[in-house]
Formats: sequence, C-alpha cells, structure tokens
Amino acid sequence: MTPSPAEADLIITGCTVLVHDDHERIGFEEDAAIVVRDGLVEAVTGADEAGGLPARERIDARGQVAMPGLVNCHTHAPMVALRGVAEDLPTEEWFNDVVWPIESNLTEKDVELGARLACAEMIRGGVTCFADHYFAMDAVAAVVDECGIRAHLGEAFFSSQGPQGREKSLEFALRHRGGAGGRITTTLAPHAPYTVDDADLAATAELAREHGLSVHIHASENRDQTDVSLERQGVTPIGVLQRTGILDTDVLIAHGTGIVDSDLPVLESAAGRVAVASAPRGYLKFAWPTTTPIRALYDIGIPVGLATDGAASNNSLDVWESMALTALIQKSTTGDPRWLTSRQALHHATLQSARAVGLGETLGTLHPGRRADIILVDLTGPHAQPVHDLAATLVHSARSSDVRTTIVDGRVLMRDRELLTLDVPAVVRELGERMLALLDRSHGRRIQDYKT
Amino acid sequence: MTPSPAEADLIITGCTVLVHDDHERIGFEEDAAIVVRDGLVEAVTGADEAGGLPARERIDARGQVAMPGLVNCHTHAPMVALRGVAEDLPTEEWFNDVVWPIESNLTEKDVELGARLACAEMIRGGVTCFADHYFAMDAVAAVVDECGIRAHLGEAFFSSQGPQGREKSLEFALRHRGGAGGRITTTLAPHAPYTVDDADLAATAELAREHGLSVHIHASENRDQTDVSLERQGVTPIGVLQRTGILDTDVLIAHGTGIVDSDLPVLESAAGRVAVASAPRGYLKFAWPTTTPIRALYDIGIPVGLATDGAASNNSLDVWESMALTALIQKSTTGDPRWLTSRQALHHATLQSARAVGLGETLGTLHPGRRADIILVDLTGPHAQPVHDLAATLVHSARSSDVRTTIVDGRVLMRDRELLTLDVPAVVRELGERMLALLDRSHGRRIQDYKT
Repeated sequence: MTPSPAEADLIITGCTVLVHDDHERIGFEEDAAIVVRDGLVEAVTGADEAGGLPARERIDARGQVAMPGLVNCHTHAPMVALRGVAEDLPTEEWFNDVVWPIESNLTEKDVELGARLACAEMIRGGVTCFADHYFAMDAVAAVVDECGIRAHLGEAFFSSQGPQGREKSLEFALRHRGGAGGRITTTLAPHAPYTVDDADLAATAELAREHGLSVHIHASENRDQTDVSLERQGVTPIGVLQRTGILDTDVLIAHGTGIVDSDLPVLESAAGRVAVASAPRGYLKFAWPTTTPIRALYDIGIPVGLATDGAASNNSLDVWESMALTALIQKSTTGDPRWLTSRQALHHATLQSARAVGLGETLGTLHPGRRADIILVDLTGPHAQPVHDLAATLVHSARSSDVRTTIVDGRVLMRDRELLTLDVPAVVRELGERMLALLDRSHGRRIQDYKT
Repeated sequence: MTPSPAEADLIITGCTVLVHDDHERIGFEEDAAIVVRDGLVEAVTGADEAGGLPARERIDARGQVAMPGLVNCHTHAPMVALRGVAEDLPTEEWFNDVVWPIESNLTEKDVELGARLACAEMIRGGVTCFADHYFAMDAVAAVVDECGIRAHLGEAFFSSQGPQGREKSLEFALRHRGGAGGRITTTLAPHAPYTVDDADLAATAELAREHGLSVHIHASENRDQTDVSLERQGVTPIGVLQRTGILDTDVLIAHGTGIVDSDLPVLESAAGRVAVASAPRGYLKFAWPTTTPIRALYDIGIPVGLATDGAASNNSLDVWESMALTALIQKSTTGDPRWLTSRQALHHATLQSARAVGLGETLGTLHPGRRADIILVDLTGPHAQPVHDLAATLVHSARSSDVRTTIVDGRVLMRDRELLTLDVPAVVRELGERMLALLDRSHGRRIQDYKT
C-alpha cells in the first residue's frame, strides 16, 4: 500500500475511509488519505504520509467519510421522465393503464433526456454505477459516455418483438461492451419469464454462453407471479430460469420477492453465477405481500445488491434510501432486530452490489488496484451528530444529500454538491417541452400487456 | 384574504402554496404569495398582487413550494445525544441494558445541549413544532425560547418517583404554559401505563381536568404490551387509560401499534379528545410485528400525527421521512396500494399533526389568521423533477434536505439552509466533551426497568 513518489492524479486527505478486511468485515480508517492514479485507487494511507506527496488535484475531506460509490443494481434510468405519473395503483393497472401505454410513445430523444436527468440524480446521490434495463439504450450509453458515470447496460426485449428483440439486445451488448473508456459493461436483457417465452430464454442463454455475456432479467418479482407460474407451467419463475438454461449463465435477477423455499436449492446450485437486486421501496408502494428474502439468500451464498427500480414506481433513484430501507424492512419481515445490521447493509451497498453487476473484482471496496469510484460523505450536519457508531450513522442517519463529492474512475463528477458534467435546468426544460407528446394515452396502444 | 396596505413583516413571493379547501382537501396555488404580519399568515394571494405591497422583509421563493411547517408529534429531543448507542437490539435490551442505564447519568446540561442539537436538526428538516416528552424539561424550554422553534412540552414521570413525579410534571406544565412568547404549550407527561400505576394515572387525569391541561403518554406501544396488560390486568393499555379517566382528558397517545380491534369503540367514544402519534421507522427497526393502525383510526375519526420518537431508536428527527414511511408502510400493511395516498400523507403531516399536539386551530394550514409557521421546499433538484403530481413529488421524491427556509411565527430560523439561531459546531464540540461521563454504565443503575 505504499504510494509511488511520482505525481498522483488525485489525493483525498483527512477523511475516514470505509475499508473491508480480509474477511470482508467493514472497518473505518480514521485520518486517512486516498491516492488515485490512472483511474485506480493506488493506496489508502495515513493523512501524514500523503501530506508530502505531489498530486495534480487534492481534496481536503476533513469531517467526511470516503466510501465506495453506490451501485444501483437495477433501474430503468430514463423512466425518471415518468416520475409521479402512476401513483397509488396496483401493479397491473400501473403497467397496463399508464406506464406501458406511455412507453409506446417513447422516442430516443426522450430516453436521452431521461437518462441525463437520471445520471444527474444518481451522481448527486452518490451512485457511481447503475445497471440499466430499458429501451433505446444507445441513447443511455451515449449519456454515460458524456457524463462520466459507470454503467452496466442491457437492451430490454419481449418475445412479442419476435427474434429481432433478442438479436437487438445481443447486438447492443456486443457493440457497447467496454465502451466509454471501459466504464460500460453490457448484458443481455430479456424482460421477464412472463413476457419472454421459454424458447427465447433458452436462445438467450445460448447467446450468453457463446459471447461470454451475462443476463439481467426480472423474475419472481412478486408472489403473484410465482403462484401464476406454478399454476400455468408447474414451475416457479426461478424454475423457468433453470429449465431454459438462464441459471447456467451469470445472471442478475431483479426483485425476487416471489422467491419461495423450493427455489432455494435451485438458486444455491447456481451460487457464484446468480445475484439478486432488491429495490424495497417499490414493494412497499405496490403493497406486495413480501420483500426480497435476503436472509435466505445469504444462507445459500447469493449476493443481494441494492437497487431503486425505475422512478415511475420508486419515485427516486436514491440508493442510499434503499440501503436504509433494506436494513429496516429486513428486521421487520424477519421479526429479528439483530438481523441486517448497519455493517451488513454496508456490505450489501459495497461488495455485494459490485458482485451483482459483475464487477466484484474491480469495484466495491477502496482497496489498491480497484477502480477509483469514491464518494465523500459529510457527517457534520446536526442530523448525523454525535457519531457513536459510524456504520449506524451512515445507514440510519446520513442521507444521499450528505454526499458532497462523487468520483468515478478518479474523475470528479460532483464537487461540493455541484454537478460538473450535467446541466440539470437545461435537461428539465427540454424534457418539459416533450411531455404532452410523451404522456399521450389517447392512441390506446401499449408496448406490452401485464399478465403474470 | 385581502392584505392590508400597511407594511407587512414578511412577504414570500413566487411560490406554489399548499392549501386546504373547506373539506380539508389538499390543493396547490401556483405563482402565489404569502403575506405575514404579527406572526400570522395575513393572506395567501397572487404573486402579482403581492408584488406592489411594502414589506420589511421579502423572500423570492420561485421554484419552491410553501407549506405548513412539519410537526414532530412525539419525540425525546435531547436523546439525539444517544444517537447510535443502542443498535440492532430488541426493545427490552435497548431500554434495560443501554438507554435507561445511560439516562441515569443525564444532567441538565446534557439535556440542554441535546435539545439544541435536536432543534438544529429539526429546523433544518422543516420541523417548526415538536412535542417533547422527557426529563429536565426546563432546559428544553429554555432552548425553545432561545432558538425560536415552537414546542409542546411535558416533564415525564414514573410512579417509581412517588407523588413528586406527578407534581413536578404539573408544576412544569403550569410554569411554562404560554412561554417563549406563546410558542410553548404544555402537557402532563406520565411515561406509560406499564411504568405509571392506575392511582397515579387517575390522579393525573384529575389534575388535567382541574388545570385545563392535556396528557401526553406512551400507550399500547407494541403488541407485546397489549398482550401482557390483558394477561395481568384483564384490560388492554387503552382500557387502562379509559378506567383511569385519562381518555376523558385531551390525550396524545404515542405509537399505539398495539391497539387492537376491541380498543376501537373505546377510542371512538373519546374521538375529539384523543390523538395518536406514529413514528413508523422505529417500529421497523425494533422488528415490532405491527404498525400504528392508521386506517382503523381514520374510520373512527382519530387524528394521527407524524413523529420520529427519539433519535436513540429512530436515528434521526426527520419527520419528512416519517411522512414517506407512513404512506409506504400503510400500503404494505393493509395490502392496498390505493390507501394512504400522498394527499392523505400530507393531511397527516399538516392538519392531523397540528390537532395531535392540540394546535388544530392555530397551525396546520396556511390560512389567514393561522400562525406563520412556514417552510419553503426547493423542487429544482434532479431527484424531484419532472413534477407530474406535486403531492407525490413532495411525499415520495422530495427529502427533508430540500427544505431551504424554515419560518416560525413569521421569524426566519433557517434561510437557504443556513441556521440563524443555533451554532451546531459549538454544540457538537461541547456535547462531545461530556460523552464519557454520559455513556458510563459501570455504575449498574438504571432510571427504570422495562417490564411491560
């Protein structure tokens, strides 16, 4: 961990650094410094030692905690354009009466503006990487390139699009893999077992193997879907993923609140390849009867990453809130106040989230050699003081608005709450001009039907 | 609603104002202005009309929503000093092993510093009034006077203190009633039916009647307490409040997650006098099996105000978060996504919270003649845009950190996020010096035992 004497790209001094030990236990190094070079963490060292090192850029982070940037493991970023259009509705009405009719109007320009607004929100909330599952993803990739964030992108498809859906998803994944200077990774993105048929899923699994790609898919989103799948097909949605070969690939399952006990051995046999993304706020808002069974997944070694889903259901892309809600809802649903401690929540927010998006070796901890995706969190606000238990302060008292600085690949994207790569008022204005056309539902079309 | 032509104390221009109609339905007046005089809302008028009026002070609030200040209907403000000391514990261990031993060390100075930090946090979070139920409340009253916030204060007591506890609570209530230029209202504050015996509760009810005071008490905090009360005394905690005459007074019940169906007719017969304060975050964190039954209380006409409880369990005094969680947890626990809409949540946050603390005629809506307790909420952040449904934006997308300006009785206590009446770094420093003594548990004492 000795930094090189040559000029560093960036040195962050005087902060407390969230670190993981060899057993992945979370700890805090006080009065520390982070040396960044070539987009990587070169060293985490004492503030004194770093004081004399030359650097192109320095950040004085006294009173702040440096931690790995948050990863939004499942979202539909451009849907921020639809934030608040479909409130207080059951899932089926939300999809069929509002969201899917509106999405039939989507243009590439809407997606571009939505993605820009979403990236602004995420960077301000300390998110340095997001897994996006949506349409017109070329536009999202362009925005990622432009604004400096990291992303794991997949072009979503339904079987109703015919084989072209799958082919387009593959073509996108191959063309953008390694894009934006390596900040873009890609995945195949079949929508869900209830909108993509078995043949298409099997073909997708085959393409994933052939091209060394992963799969990002909604599955067992809620208990209803599991019940209907069992009734109609005799297997759960997880069973569908198994029989179609999807579980033989590296797969990120969104939500999984409908995962049942009989799914656990199936998932366990895919441990090491499969991860689940949990977005607890939306499950509460839709009044789903269960949440992601994180404790059961923990017991079988399946990482669970934090997510927000799209803002049309979650109303924000606030992964910090997802972290706090995950801790609270896990305690509540297991009936055990000792389960999912703040340190566990931080483990989900860091290493498990990095693993969920296939970046477990390059992100998730501020260890030398990892990408320099770093956020600085200000704990001087009255709501965060005094600090008796720093992990608890981070999870239960701090808020996304306490993130002062967001860094990706060593590049500062937000400094002291000011976004350096995105112009929010311009995006909001331009998006506003397109709203009448985007929200029009008089045509009676929808891109898909929600029938679990 | 025509403002006087004489110079106003304060005019807020260019904002959208949250208003209530004659049926208490929430609406929004765009491009409006608020005229404040003598600590009261004099008029809510058009921005054009207000443009020409003279005023001692003007606030340009374009892009912001003006709404009634939030009310924290049940807290123990000075407990911010213990934020994070007792994490991930069941209720009984939280009380007996950590909080009550530490509280046996409390000095008036600790309470004063804690109250100051708490008021800073609340003013920054848009809270303009709080109901506090704690010890050494003279110190809290002094801080309220000094910093300009409004408060409903009660000196807590246990029967283990003997009759002096009750007498001290009465003496406090009488001495401080109408204090801080009318910003302080007072109440009698027996701790709970499991720590205050029936004779003491009956005597408290008698004192309340005699002196025209209300009562603020924990009751039916969780289902366990209800079960144990039924087993030992043959009645629920609500039954205890009834048989001791407490329900014949104006009473604010904290939590009530253990309220059961048989309590509802009892509470209904006290409608108009009784209110409940709900602090949902802590119920999740303690893994209590139920939350406040807001829908059942709504059906019998009992107002439910929003609260945070103390920061030792809730980890913050963020009433904005309580508002969002109330909506989410109500949907989830009733299984109905249509229940507790954003407008309902805002009704709880405004009129119902004002009623809960006995100020239903003077606070809770920005109507002419009401106290000018106003917050200005900035919705220009990327996380709040675009705005398709302003009520949903406020409840589900905005955060307490979006409150830019906090006004109590027409006096600006925070402007553009800067606190004008409190010095947070000084309080944090002074509190820090006292921590070793405060946290010492080697003496083996506790102020009380938790045995439901």
